[in-house]
Amino acid sequence: MHPQEQEAAQPGEPVSPSVADAAPELPLILLSHRGPVTFGRNADGERVVSKGSGGLVTALLGLAQYLGDAVWICAAATEEDAAVAREAKRHPVRVITTPMPHVADEGEEGPDVLVDMIEIDEERQAEFYGVFSNPILWFIQHGLYGLAESPVLTAAEHHAFEHGYAGVNEQMADELARLVEERDGRALVLIQDYHFYLVADSVRRRCPNVVLSHFVHIPWPGPEAWRVLPPWIRERLLRGLLGSDIVAFHTRRYARNFLLCVQDLLGLDVDPDEMTISVDDRTVRVRHYPISVDPAALIALADSQEVHRSTDELSDRFLNSGNRLILRVDRTDPSKNVVRGFLAFGTLLDQHPELVGRVSFLALLQPSRKDVPEYSDYISNIGATVADINARHTREGQQPIDLQLVEDFPFAVAAYCVCDVLVVNALADGMNLVAKEFSVVNRRDGVLALSETTGAWEELGQDAVTLYPFDVQQQADALYEALMMSADERHRRLEAIRAQVVGSDIQRWLASQLDDLRVLMR
Amino acid sequence: MHPQEQEAAQPGEPVSPSVADAAPELPLILLSHRGPVTFGRNADGERVVSKGSGGLVTALLGLAQYLGDAVWICAAATEEDAAVAREAKRHPVRVITTPMPHVADEGEEGPDVLVDMIEIDEERQAEFYGVFSNPILWFIQHGLYGLAESPVLTAAEHHAFEHGYAGVNEQMADELARLVEERDGRALVLIQDYHFYLVADSVRRRCPNVVLSHFVHIPWPGPEAWRVLPPWIRERLLRGLLGSDIVAFHTRRYARNFLLCVQDLLGLDVDPDEMTISVDDRTVRVRHYPISVDPAALIALADSQEVHRSTDELSDRFLNSGNRLILRVDRTDPSKNVVRGFLAFGTLLDQHPELVGRVSFLALLQPSRKDVPEYSDYISNIGATVADINARHTREGQQPIDLQLVEDFPFAVAAYCVCDVLVVNALADGMNLVAKEFSVVNRRDGVLALSETTGAWEELGQDAVTLYPFDVQQQADALYEALMMSADERHRRLEAIRAQVVGSDIQRWLASQLDDLRVLMR
Repeated sequence: MHPQEQEAAQPGEPVSPSVADAAPELPLILLSHRGPVTFGRNADGERVVSKGSGGLVTALLGLAQYLGDAVWICAAATEEDAAVAREAKRHPVRVITTPMPHVADEGEEGPDVLVDMIEIDEERQAEFYGVFSNPILWFIQHGLYGLAESPVLTAAEHHAFEHGYAGVNEQMADELARLVEERDGRALVLIQDYHFYLVADSVRRRCPNVVLSHFVHIPWPGPEAWRVLPPWIRERLLRGLLGSDIVAFHTRRYARNFLLCVQDLLGLDVDPDEMTISVDDRTVRVRHYPISVDPAALIALADSQEVHRSTDELSDRFLNSGNRLILRVDRTDPSKNVVRGFLAFGTLLDQHPELVGRVSFLALLQPSRKDVPEYSDYISNIGATVADINARHTREGQQPIDLQLVEDFPFAVAAYCVCDVLVVNALADGMNLVAKEFSVVNRRDGVLALSETTGAWEELGQDAVTLYPFDVQQQADALYEALMMSADERHRRLEAIRAQVVGSDIQRWLASQLDDLRVLMR
Repeated sequence: MHPQEQEAAQPGEPVSPSVADAAPELPLILLSHRGPVTFGRNADGERVVSKGSGGLVTALLGLAQYLGDAVWICAAATEEDAAVAREAKRHPVRVITTPMPHVADEGEEGPDVLVDMIEIDEERQAEFYGVFSNPILWFIQHGLYGLAESPVLTAAEHHAFEHGYAGVNEQMADELARLVEERDGRALVLIQDYHFYLVADSVRRRCPNVVLSHFVHIPWPGPEAWRVLPPWIRERLLRGLLGSDIVAFHTRRYARNFLLCVQDLLGLDVDPDEMTISVDDRTVRVRHYPISVDPAALIALADSQEVHRSTDELSDRFLNSGNRLILRVDRTDPSKNVVRGFLAFGTLLDQHPELVGRVSFLALLQPSRKDVPEYSDYISNIGATVADINARHTREGQQPIDLQLVEDFPFAVAAYCVCDVLVVNALADGMNLVAKEFSVVNRRDGVLALSETTGAWEELGQDAVTLYPFDVQQQADALYEALMMSADERHRRLEAIRAQVVGSDIQRWLASQLDDLRVLMR
């Protein structure tokens, strides 16, 4: 069912289907590139553990309590992770997931997950991650290539695929197959994201009785975009995914695009009404489940002393005398479209000089992949654009844009609470959870200005102010519309968005998948 | 019917359906941006006329003899064109089309067409052509944007659309409607290409009894690519085309993509089996007719003295001692993928040093749109790449790449005749007629190395060596395969390609359209 069609629940109310109801009857194995925890050493040389990074880990970690004796396979991300992996050999480490993840002491009770870290050869990891997954897959799926010039695929990229990407995928498939066989060949395997497109098919061949789901968390473009890769690569990626029982995406559009790819690039028959593909003697289902947030956890954080201190500070700085605050919270990924967002704000101030000194733009940007030239160049472009606009529009010592290149989630939540407009103008984004986080905690009837090319727009677009990400004039007009909107209208829209997010939260995201998979377990 | 399913005819044999059989029963009006002729003044100040430029004009001009009393509307391209237009006022100029186009003398007999040149205001023309049609539409439809950085649509681009593009379209629609009304409201109107997407709808509203076809000669990408434009622009372009009875493309894939765009971006129901769309009370048919060449004219040119002199010269330079010649003939448009083609040739020589001194690469490149920065930069990149490879692989004073930035069609035909491999590695190309021209006249059982992302690949791909345009290593391997192919295999493949091209020539292209349109004229 499309989330818009679901009845909305209020924060704190139970949603149906609940994860508990949908808990699987088979042992569960999860695979993602980043794990729930990562290990290091402190100044005293003692081993310390911290939460793994990334939004996907946060989402999955909050669900671990519902997943029974799940094993979570991931790549060792640090030297200490590798040391833990070697010590643990083939015995996963038991991690208590809440309130702060830590390695369980002998006999310690609590919601837990078994973490199985896989050590990957350094050179192979560089090819797997640094050459093939990022940038090639990331760039293709977010439409970031300027195709006149890049990519130029050479023997090095072929090797990175065969040795790096396919090699790591096979290593993960080996471990998965071993764990499945330990469980008498019957298990529910949940594979996550674009790092592991080849795994499902490989596991399926060795463990025919497994139930497999592969969730793709980034956009899935149409067939043309995939023609950047030669057929022996793109076909293997598609065939790999078709080893799953369910191939899952965040939106209907991505799911439809996947079907078109299977049709055009593999020449297989697809059923566009049933959203299924017949492969060998199996039926592969293509589904969409929009990922979401944990409203209760966000509300709790927003009510913390730390966040209250920050909201006071932000209000003092930005909201005196009826002044207004526009916010964005992103990684500095070119797909987030930060530069055009600032250009739009500059255009707004050019065209509405009465707003200068009355409206500020706070940008909390976490620097990302600084070792990739496109990314470090992008940070430079951001800085140059901000300097230009601030030089043009500073009034009485107050700069209109406050650019903070930091990662500080509680501070971001404080900013969500007090902003008047949240800008999400990504040119492609699998879902975009920032939009959903904001809507749960905002206290000023803030307006969501949301790009039509984010996954979230399929759910929330009708109550957002829509942004067209390549059109700076339109974005300037939309920001003006958001700032001028009546209080009633703002209130109505934010309530509608909040109801949608709360009614389709992270638990429902997992529960819907488990519901669909349960049918296949019989 | 798909051309692959048609029986192949031999050069010179009549094909069925012939244009004569399919000649329309209604007066015919043609609209294209460039016209069949253009006027200038010679050194003595006398008015002179020459053939209009571009492949589309060449193709249409060869068909004019079949088109009865057709009127051909076009934009005045020169000051002298504008002068002719003013003198002629509302009386089109009669042009004899063959053998060399010229203005008909009073009472002169011969295959003719009435040319109706429309003078466009200079500023409007700059916005229509220099801002909106090229680059915006051209870049979107060829996938040339690096979306992280461009385009940045501002008020200037909005104005260029409204005032320039929509303005010129309305001007052309006015003239079309006037001519249709002169013909009692009944006429067959054939609109050509991406300059005039808004015309059909405008004419339809004023002349409901007209029969309208719009042929798009460049690729039509899927809905994602069109999201570069805000909805009020992309929707108008689509609605404009839906004023036609038939929207026509070169390939099945473009036609399918157009249906997806109508479905996703306009929310209209489409019938993917019948390839139709219901709009108001009309049915719009979406069809594909692969454009082609005039084999007889090419064979005649290849047999001319001028071409014979050139083939002798080329043979002397490139083909002594069993040496081999690779050829490409293109405009210097980034979509043609010239740089990666040279990189692939460089890789071939790196990996097969025994070929150095034995294989040459002749590139005949017509400079294109030098006033657009992306295009002039691209010419620089081409030069830099050639210099690098020639510096690395020159042997005994013989450079492996001969780069000629010229336009000389008879010389290109000579090169078609004697090359061993023709390279077409475009990253997007509506059809690509170079591949077809080569196949008609080549005398050495040359191999066609053809990108899968050209329109021609849908017809000719199975007998070509396929190139994957972003993969330089694959293209190097494919060139090696082409050079090493047995004589029998080369012969078989070229004959198959030639039969396909000759059996589906330019006359059939027009005749098939007229056949389908005739049904609508009743």
